[in-house]
Formats: sequence, C-alpha cells, structure tokens
Amino acid sequence: MNPDLQREREKATFESIDLTYVTDGGREKTRRRRYIESLVLNDPAFKHEDFSFLTRNEQINLGAKLSILLEKKIKQYNLHDEDDLKYFRGAFPHHAFLVHHLMFKPSILGQGTEEQQKKWLPLADNLKIIGTYAQTELGHGTFLRGLETTATFDPKTDEFVMHSPTLTSMKWWPGHLGRISSHAIVVAQLYTKGECHGIHQFMVPLRSMKDHTPLPGVTLGDIGPKLDGFLDNGFLKLDHVRIPRENMMMKFAQVTRDGSYIKPVNSRMTYASMVLMRVAFTEGAAKVLSQACMISVRYSAVRHQTEMTPGGGEPQILDYQSQQYKLFPIVAATYAFYLAARNLKAIYTGAQDEFKVGNFESLADLHSISSGLKAFCADACNKGVETCRHACGGHGFLQASRLPYLYGLATALVIVEGENTVLYLQVARYLMKCVSQAMAGQKLPSLVSYMTEERQHQWSVKSQADLHDLSLLLDAYKHRCQRLVTMAAEKLQNQIMSGSAQHEAWNNTHLSLIKAAKAHCHLFVVRSFVDGIRTMDTSESARAVLKSLCQLYALSGIQEHSGDFLHDGYLSGDQVSMVSDFTASLLATIRPNAVAIVDAFDVPDAILGSVLGRYDGRVYEHLYESAKQSPVNKQEVHESYHKYYKPLLQSDRAKL
Amino acid sequence: MNPDLQREREKATFESIDLTYVTDGGREKTRRRRYIESLVLNDPAFKHEDFSFLTRNEQINLGAKLSILLEKKIKQYNLHDEDDLKYFRGAFPHHAFLVHHLMFKPSILGQGTEEQQKKWLPLADNLKIIGTYAQTELGHGTFLRGLETTATFDPKTDEFVMHSPTLTSMKWWPGHLGRISSHAIVVAQLYTKGECHGIHQFMVPLRSMKDHTPLPGVTLGDIGPKLDGFLDNGFLKLDHVRIPRENMMMKFAQVTRDGSYIKPVNSRMTYASMVLMRVAFTEGAAKVLSQACMISVRYSAVRHQTEMTPGGGEPQILDYQSQQYKLFPIVAATYAFYLAARNLKAIYTGAQDEFKVGNFESLADLHSISSGLKAFCADACNKGVETCRHACGGHGFLQASRLPYLYGLATALVIVEGENTVLYLQVARYLMKCVSQAMAGQKLPSLVSYMTEERQHQWSVKSQADLHDLSLLLDAYKHRCQRLVTMAAEKLQNQIMSGSAQHEAWNNTHLSLIKAAKAHCHLFVVRSFVDGIRTMDTSESARAVLKSLCQLYALSGIQEHSGDFLHDGYLSGDQVSMVSDFTASLLATIRPNAVAIVDAFDVPDAILGSVLGRYDGRVYEHLYESAKQSPVNKQEVHESYHKYYKPLLQSDRAKL
Repeated sequence: MNPDLQREREKATFESIDLTYVTDGGREKTRRRRYIESLVLNDPAFKHEDFSFLTRNEQINLGAKLSILLEKKIKQYNLHDEDDLKYFRGAFPHHAFLVHHLMFKPSILGQGTEEQQKKWLPLADNLKIIGTYAQTELGHGTFLRGLETTATFDPKTDEFVMHSPTLTSMKWWPGHLGRISSHAIVVAQLYTKGECHGIHQFMVPLRSMKDHTPLPGVTLGDIGPKLDGFLDNGFLKLDHVRIPRENMMMKFAQVTRDGSYIKPVNSRMTYASMVLMRVAFTEGAAKVLSQACMISVRYSAVRHQTEMTPGGGEPQILDYQSQQYKLFPIVAATYAFYLAARNLKAIYTGAQDEFKVGNFESLADLHSISSGLKAFCADACNKGVETCRHACGGHGFLQASRLPYLYGLATALVIVEGENTVLYLQVARYLMKCVSQAMAGQKLPSLVSYMTEERQHQWSVKSQADLHDLSLLLDAYKHRCQRLVTMAAEKLQNQIMSGSAQHEAWNNTHLSLIKAAKAHCHLFVVRSFVDGIRTMDTSESARAVLKSLCQLYALSGIQEHSGDFLHDGYLSGDQVSMVSDFTASLLATIRPNAVAIVDAFDVPDAILGSVLGRYDGRVYEHLYESAKQSPVNKQEVHESYHKYYKPLLQSDRAKL
Repeated sequence: MNPDLQREREKATFESIDLTYVTDGGREKTRRRRYIESLVLNDPAFKHEDFSFLTRNEQINLGAKLSILLEKKIKQYNLHDEDDLKYFRGAFPHHAFLVHHLMFKPSILGQGTEEQQKKWLPLADNLKIIGTYAQTELGHGTFLRGLETTATFDPKTDEFVMHSPTLTSMKWWPGHLGRISSHAIVVAQLYTKGECHGIHQFMVPLRSMKDHTPLPGVTLGDIGPKLDGFLDNGFLKLDHVRIPRENMMMKFAQVTRDGSYIKPVNSRMTYASMVLMRVAFTEGAAKVLSQACMISVRYSAVRHQTEMTPGGGEPQILDYQSQQYKLFPIVAATYAFYLAARNLKAIYTGAQDEFKVGNFESLADLHSISSGLKAFCADACNKGVETCRHACGGHGFLQASRLPYLYGLATALVIVEGENTVLYLQVARYLMKCVSQAMAGQKLPSLVSYMTEERQHQWSVKSQADLHDLSLLLDAYKHRCQRLVTMAAEKLQNQIMSGSAQHEAWNNTHLSLIKAAKAHCHLFVVRSFVDGIRTMDTSESARAVLKSLCQLYALSGIQEHSGDFLHDGYLSGDQVSMVSDFTASLLATIRPNAVAIVDAFDVPDAILGSVLGRYDGRVYEHLYESAKQSPVNKQEVHESYHKYYKPLLQSDRAKL
C-alpha cells in the first residue's frame, strides 16, 4: 500500500462505506452488488488480456467468448433481478449483448403484441437469436421523422417490403449490427395503400440461421474504427427484403390483412417509458464520472510535483488549490447526478399511478426534465472526464490509465438517446409553453413552478456565514432560471412582433433558449442535491461531507456562471467575491476527506482497470508492469529495424 | 461536387485565396507551400493504407518506411529552407523523425560546442544515428529540478556514469525512444566531486550500431497504447551506463578533465530560444484547429437535419444559430491564434538585436507571454476540436472523420512543452512582479503596460453601433486584466498580512492568479487580432471578413466571461445584452462566407484525411467507401461466429 494513500484514509472524518450506501441506494444494495460482482471477478474464467493490446478483430473475438460465458453463468446462477443483471454484466465492460438486452428485447416487450412477445422473447432470452435496434441512418439521427427506410405493405403476399431507397437511408451506427446480430428491430416509414403512416418498428432477420451469411437483399458490415471505448457498430442496406406482415410490431398501431392501417389508441406510455431510459443514461454519466474521479483523485494523492518552498520537498499534487478546484467540483457533480437521477426516478414512480388511470398531466414536465437532465449530465460528464484526464498530466493519455476509454464512453453520452443541443431545444420549447400558461394565469407543473414564485430583487446573502444556508443557494438558481426563461420568451416575442416568421424567430433565439434550458436543468440538479441531503438516512459525519460537496457544487456553479447572476444585479460583485472565497475554503474543508470520498464509489480495481487509480496506489510499479506487456515490446529489436532502419543506419555514411 | 458546397462557394463575398495568404504569411509562401506539398501528394510512392486500420506494430513499420522515403526525397530535391522542410514533412503526418529533427538536433545545435556539433550533426543529418530527447521521467514532468536521473563524473576514467537510481527516475514519454532511436540527449543531474550542479544534457548511445540491440545497462521499450494521434513513446532505464566526458553538451557549462565544474556564463539565449519553441506550438494549435474547423464547417453545409417548418424540408445544419455559435467563434479563434503567434514572433525578432548586445530587458515580458500563449491556445484548441467533433454528431466519432486523431493532437498540446496550469502560474508570478514594480513607480514593459493605464470606470459603449469600434473591445479586455491582476495581488497580500507563509499564500491564491494569467493572454490574443487587421496587406473584402471574425472573437469572449466584465460594474447588464445581440447578428453576417473562410485554410484532402471534410462534400459516399475497407469486414462471416456464436445459436433451443 502506498503510504500517502494509507495516510489519507486514516485521516478521513467519516466512514467511506456510508457514502457507498448513498450511491448504491442502501446498505443491502451495496452488499448484493459486491457479492454479484465477486462472482465474476473471482472467477478465473473471466481473466483476460488487456483489450487495449488487441486488434479490433481480436477484441470482437474475446468479447464474444466472454460475453457468452457471462450469459451462461447468469443462467447457472439463476439471476433474474434487474439490478443483479446490471451488476453482473457491468463487471465485464466489453459485453457484446448490451444492445440485445437493453434495446432489442425492450422493443419487443414495449412494441410487440402478446403473441409477438411469446414468439420472440424466449428466442432472445436464450440467445437463439441475437438482435440489435436499427434506427439511426447515415443521413438521419435525432430527427426521426426524417428517416428514409421504407416498409411497404404488399397485400398480394401479405408481406412488408423493407427497403433502403437512398445511400443516406442506410442504417448506420447500431451496436453489433455489422458482424454479430442475426436479427434487427428496424425503424422504417410504413407505407400501405399508397399512404405513409410514419415510422414503425419491424422485426427483420438479417443473417441465415444456418451459416450466418447475410440473407438475400441484406448488405451489412462494420462502419470502421472509432474513438476508444466504443463497441462495434454496423451498417445495413436493405434491398427489397420481404418479411411477413406479422413481423411489424403491432402492440399499438396495426396493419390488417387487407392493408388497412389502424392508428395507435394511446402511445403515451411509450413516451413515458423514455423518461426511465434517460434516467438510466443520467446514472450512466454519474457512473463514468465516478470512475474518472477515483482515478484522478487517488493519483493526485500519490503524485508529488514541484516544490512549494525551495528544498521543502514536492507536495502531493492534491495539495495544490488549482488541482483541488479541477477535481473536487467534479466529485461533487458525481453525487449531484446520482441524486438527481434518483429524484427523477422517484417522481416518475410517484406519477405511475396517475398514468395508469389515464392522467398524464405531469408527463410533459417529467419528460422535459428527463431530456434536459440527460443532456446536462452528459455534457458535464464529457467535460469532467476530460478535466480528470488532464489532471493526471501525461499519464492520463495512456490507455493503461483507463481515462481515454472513459472519455470515449462519456463523450458518447452526448449523442446517444438524442443529441444534446436538440434536447435542450426540446426543453426550451416546453419552457416557452409554460411561460404562455403562466401568462394565461394557469397553474404551472411542479418543476417549473419557480417561474411564478415571488422573489426578492437582490440575493439576501450578507456574509459568508449565510452561504451555509442551502435554501439561499437554491434561491439564486431559481432567480437565474426565472430571468433567463423570461428573457428568452421576450426575445422570441420581440422577433415575432418585428415580423419574423415563427420558425425564424425560434432559430434566431436558439442561444437564449439553450441558456434557459441549461439553467432549468442545473436548478433541478442543485435542488435534487439539497433535497437529497435533507431527507437521506445516513450518519451525521457522512451528511456533513455531502453538505460540503453540495455547497461546492452550487457555489462553484455560481462562480463559473457569475455573469448570469450579476446581469440584473441579483448578485453584487461583492457577493460573487464572497462566493469565490467560500468556494476556496470549501476546497480546504474537503481536502482531508478527498480520497475517502472517492473510495466510496467502491469500484473494484478489476472493473476500474486503471494503473493510476488502483486502491493500493502503487502507480509507478503498475505503469511499468503494464508497459512491459505492450505488444510493441515483444521483440527486443523491432521488426521495423530489420526491414527499414538497418539499411539506412548501415548504408554508406555519406549518402542518405 | 456536392451542390450545397458549390452554392456556398459561389455566394462568398471575397476570394478565399486572400485569406490563405494571411495564414500562410503571403502570396509567395502559399505558392511555395502548395508546390512543396504537391511533391509528396502527387508522388505515388507515398500512397498508403489508412493508419487507423493498422495495428501499432504495423503503424510503426509503415511510418518507418515512408519516413525514410521522405527523408531521401528531401535530399533528392535538395530542400534546406526551414519552411520547405516543414511543408514537406507536414504532408505525411505520421513522420517518425519529428523528435529527431525538432528536439534532438536543436539540442546539439543549442547546447553543443562547435566541436560537438561538428561530430554529431552530420551523423544526425544523414540519419546515421536516430536521436530523441529524454527529459520527462515516470515521476517527474514540468518541474525540472525534480528530475532524478544522475550523471556522475568519474575522474578515473574521464567518463560520466549515467544512472536511473529509482523506479520514478526512468525516462518516460520521449517520442520514438522505445523502438527506433539509437541515441538520446538525456537530461540528468550532474554530479562531480560529490556535488550536484543541477540538470545538464548528455549524449547517450542507446543501441548497438551493429544490430540495434540495447547497449549494456540500457533497458528500454514502448510505454504502451495511448490516445489516438500519438507517435510511439518510450521508456529508458539506465544502469550505470558509462559515456565519455565529451558527451556532455558543453556549450555553456563545462566539466574539466579533473572534474571541476565551470558555470555557464550566460544561458539567457537558451531561455530566449524557448520563446520561439512556444510560438511554434501556438501555431501548431492554430493549425490543428483550422483542420477541425474545415471538417465541421464543410460537413455542416452538407448535412441536413430537422425541419424548421413542418414539411419545409431539412435545412443545412449550418443554418441553425446554435450550430453557428458552436463553430464560428472557433473559426475566429483560429485566425486569432495565427495572428497572435505571428505578432509574438515579430516582437521577438525585433528584440533579437537588443539580446545580441546583452540587453535582456524585454525577455521576461516575452518569455512570460510565450508560456501563457501556448497554454491559452492549447486549452482553446483542445476545447475547440472537441466542439467541432460534437458538431458533426455521431460521425465525428469515426476515425474516418479524422476528428479523433485531431483531438489527440490538440489535447497533447495541453501537456507538451510545459503543463498548462504550471505555465499559467508562471505567467501569474511575472504579473505579480509587475504589480510590485508598478507600485514602486517603475515603468512597465510593453505587454503589461495596460496595468497602469488610466481608464474610465464604465465602458463607453452606448449602442450596438459602438461595438464596431475595435478599440472599445480592447478597452474592455484591458479593464478586465487590470481588475483581475489587481485582485489577485490584493488577495495574495491579504493572505500574507494575515500571517500565511509566502508559499501558502501563493497556493491559496491559485484560482485568482490563474484567472488573471488567462485574462492577460486573452488580451494579447485580442490585441494581436485587432492590430493584425489594421496593418495587414490584403483586399478590402477579405479585411471585412476578418473584421467580423475579430469582432466575433472578442464579443463572444465577453459573453462567455460576462461575469468578469460585470463584476465591478465596468459593463452593465444592458451592455452585455447588447454584446449578445450583436454576437448573434455577427453569426448571420459570417454565415454566407463560412465555407469560403474554411476553404481558405487550404489543407488538401490528402492531408486533411477526413471523409467529412473533403473539398467535394461527397460525405456519405466517402463514409461508405471507407467503412467497406474496415479490416473487420474482410470476411462476410466474422471468425467470432465460427468460434463462438455458432455453437450458441445452433445449440439445443431450451438451454443457453
């Protein structure tokens, strides 16, 4: 054990495990997670080579081998609980059936009739078919109405003709589509009786069940190398591929034998289920961020650099205020995002009863914040992982640090499940609707009720002591939202008044709208953190640590966006200076607990996979060990010498 | 040619080539660059496989083959001019001798005696030896005094004993050290007569000239896979390796036969030469950024997404205000950085005459801004490339877009040639010294003279029309600098007055100091842009375009950091709103010229290497062509099927 890390752990003022219960969701969950993870991590069958040393083909092979083993073990251990499956599969991050489990099967379940479920789910559960979800096209992403793939009903044969009419209509990106999947849920424009009825889902067999060759009319493959951390992604071109009518997922809309289209009665539950999907991505962002924090905080406690006083020895870099300000707000954000996701899930669960009786009043409010939260947390995660990587200096560039891989995951969150800018604009559209409602005197849904709250014109913080009051911090965020939302609405209105068409006005207000949407999400996160601390069942020492993190999250946010708060004089320059000073003092408060706080994320070395972030802190030993394994080091004299350098170095000295 | 791109080019209000002359530095330079690049690009011998499809071993082999060919052609064409060499080598970005040419040879030239130069330079020039520069260690980066490698003089044999006394003293990161280099300039602590004299440079042979095996006592290798875009980097452990005394680079300091140490008389010219090195990195940042801009602006003109009005067709994404605000400020920053680098180089050149007569008065001012500028531009480049990548949606994740590779280069700039945070703190230290000088009534050097300028308490902008006045924009930046520098100095002073030790006070003021340093660099960049436009020889239409970009750069900077300007009421909220509105109108002004502006960066397709950024705009065709080449697509049925999936898919249906 590295003595620095040992000392850090000894001086912590709270028990790490108490915070682990917070992120896991309770003591029993932690116990179970550890047990399930240990089933994979203690199993010698899962020991494997470092993925970053392999070619993509080798990665796909090893991924296949271990993923199949993983699924077999799941059956052996008879695991069914959602969390258990998440923990078990999460212990092997290169899992080849993620899209199968998280998108293909849920599509059958969510969009298929009972009969369709009965036919396809057992096959999918037992991996007799391997599926993917094919929505995105070469030329079309978040804007679903623009998808070009067609499914045209042929009443003569009672079949759909699946077709990619253009180059840009090729499916592009679906995970495991190119090389592995035997089937896909294909999203296509439904045509019947010469009329288009918009996008629907179809079960399309892609490869022969006999020999895995592509079926007639199917062209597919891998889309090529990408950023690190990405699974394999594929393309798919369909040339008049016929599937039986029963392969259209017909839980909601239907096409009858004679080709009549029956509209869906109510698809709002589908819409509702998107909320949970986005909560999952928000939790995913928190998870990625927690791993990046663990790596860079632990490394910063081990790394010594630069003398503070001549001859005074090199301090741990975690002692530098600048390093603390890089890392601690990100650690705080990690907890903020966990609590925000949990808060949203709780509100959603509470609303389920209303949904069941057909009351969808709160759905727009919930759906909007779920879109925004995914975007907001993904952005912060992307930026945060990058900051953590840079905080490790050069070593953060090494794959062995795991940070490039985490960066790949983080940055993908920005684009999956809706591109962030598009999502912010969706949130803004909802906010503008709420402004109209408020002006019409209607009561606003709970997450936007701040818009009509009476508020003082100036922040009532008089001294640093006032900054301990979390509700005053919330006030500042609420005021900022109120102002930015109002300002965006006014800008929009002014544009229209001065003669712009609605869509032009909207486009010319993008910047203000996005700013307002971000502020709305930011407020939700701060509020979730504040409320979470108030209501959570934990030790007083752990709560005190969380409170400091919550203050740091809120105050560093004010500092980073001080212009938003100063703009109309709600905050004064002196108050901003107070915020800065208090932020600096919080860094010093958090410093002694920093390692214990990231220990609490409780990711085992084997999952974290980072030479810089290991629990024992023996950073340099692990770096060297890892380098020695590099495939480039296999021969003492590299083959490029024999082939190329030797003739050069040993040729006639005068000539090049 | 994609019709969208064609239309964009037709409607431009200026000639692209005029701006090309600006970034190249003149019409003749552009002509020459194009000619030299064509020598490589039109040469079929340089056609090669896509590097992203190769394993690292294959990359090293191909890099070796083509780099040697490149060097031979340089001799054939008899190229000697610095720029010619830069253009020629720049046309093959995977060059294996970059460290050899840019660090190893300059070390001999800058630190070697005439005799040493005579001995080593011809060998290096003719690639009879291949060298690297080994400074950074596993445990030590930017803080050079902390380096642990020792060079101990042994008077008995007239040799230095080169030694790595600890694990952390291993050299780590030097480019091409592990597999290719035969020699290294090793930076080590010099010991003679039992005394340490700090770090010096030593020429150390690493590998046998006969068979390339490591020499006795030398352990070296590759440090393992990293982020994309990185050349191969190595480690080096020295176990009492003996080199003759004459292998110490003795231009300045010397060790005599009897082991006496002779101090360097004047090494300030070395210090001065660092200025140019950092200018080169600033230019490098601009270059990387220009390529990222070319890719994402061209792609944004080709990509259509989302309807603005129902049924109104999908507009080019470049028409969205949010997309413009992502990209145009980065395009503007690219020009800003080119002009800042050029400005600094000009000031440096102007000061050379003073240096030659021993007048080093302006050196600290220059050295400080060169450190800061590298940090500031590298940060912006890192963030900018990332924004460009995200602006391309999912396709920006593909290696074929080139953006992951550019990101690797961009992010490396943050850490090479001094870690950015450390550099900002160096700048801050200089600024604090200047504050003391100003308080003592001394005249300040020119780049910090804004500190003592009299300035109004409020910005004199009354209407949007005033924002056309570039000197008013400069005023705002100067005021911000003045305030932030003063505030940091006060904070520091207060800490000391309240009893903190100097180093504690410094550490506790890190955040304010870094903020001040960044503002200082930002001002230099804005000023360079403003001055550059005023003095440059170009067409009026091109100057108008540059003026819009300059305004956008300055105004979007005010908007992003509005808190800094609002803090003391120098700007009012209304003025910030004016800035925002004017920024939005600038986006619309720049929009019609956007493609022509990035065309002006004039990077040929073969160097840009991006399917998204090609001149012809046939994005989707190129994406598909590239995907089909992926090595993962070699067999129609992937080997993982035969090995793993087949038994699974065809096993008894009931069991997994």
